[in-house]
Amino acid sequence: MQAVDLAPSAPISADIFRAAMRQFVGTVSLITVGTGDERSGLVATSAGSLSADPPLVLVCVNRQASSWPLFARHAAFGVNFLRPHHRALAERFSGRDGTTGSARYDGADWRTMVTGAPLLKDAAVAFDCELDDMFDKGSHSVVIGRVMGVATAEGEDALVYWRGGYRSLTA
Amino acid sequence: MQAVDLAPSAPISADIFRAAMRQFVGTVSLITVGTGDERSGLVATSAGSLSADPPLVLVCVNRQASSWPLFARHAAFGVNFLRPHHRALAERFSGRDGTTGSARYDGADWRTMVTGAPLLKDAAVAFDCELDDMFDKGSHSVVIGRVMGVATAEGEDALVYWRGGYRSLTA
Repeated sequence: MQAVDLAPSAPISADIFRAAMRQFVGTVSLITVGTGDERSGLVATSAGSLSADPPLVLVCVNRQASSWPLFARHAAFGVNFLRPHHRALAERFSGRDGTTGSARYDGADWRTMVTGAPLLKDAAVAFDCELDDMFDKGSHSVVIGRVMGVATAEGEDALVYWRGGYRSLTA
Repeated sequence: MQAVDLAPSAPISADIFRAAMRQFVGTVSLITVGTGDERSGLVATSAGSLSADPPLVLVCVNRQASSWPLFARHAAFGVNFLRPHHRALAERFSGRDGTTGSARYDGADWRTMVTGAPLLKDAAVAFDCELDDMFDKGSHSVVIGRVMGVATAEGEDALVYWRGGYRSLTA
């Protein structure tokens, strides 16, 4: 199999980087933050495990995202791994249809556990996180959460994003 | 669907955290570091995009990993997204069969691009990274790489790790 060098001797552009990242299979997560009318959130494929002991997760958040200021203000957030039936919810949280802020939460069931961050009731897994640390790199912040609560729901499927579209995985 | 709280009112143990992370669908990457006989590496499901402009990737590396000291020493590493036919290579880099160091590289084809880090020739994507930053959190280091070169190979499949085992994804 022949390798193709996308930019062997030039700086890697954002377009080349994004084209290469199409091969990345990302678990689709809703990142939920805030309370009441100040709830907002985003969809991410960057959330994952950082450390099991202590239990830490991380997610990369664009500093241009409307929900970015809420992480420091509320010092808590949720990471909710999605299932295939959550696809419309993922699209709403991606902001593509223009829905913003707490309106993104309409039509799904939410709960809280320890920190007060909103958690999706039928997520494959919902991690209730206290903000541990945040630091800026490039266009994004790396947001680190200490896991204070975990909820799982029945089911053996997952929603992933790969090659520019959503896909369903079943066990 | 009923949510199950794994530890609603107690600290989250490493076992509970790991059980929940079984629902995470991880792209399988070989993280390659070092040169010649000092080459080593590991398999990770935590590697992904941090920022497109500038192009940055991150991966979480356990500080107990034998290859951990090599990241600072060589200041460069590769992130290689694997295909289904790389499963045996992934298992070798996971260290389960006792193979260590440069012996993990036997039987596959390698190349270099800009930094000198070893890159897998037929990876879905290989990112050639200069070490940008590393910081410690819990048991792991968050290792950040500036992407200096990208190579892709033909093919429309991917290797993922989900629910405790490897799975193949095809387009």
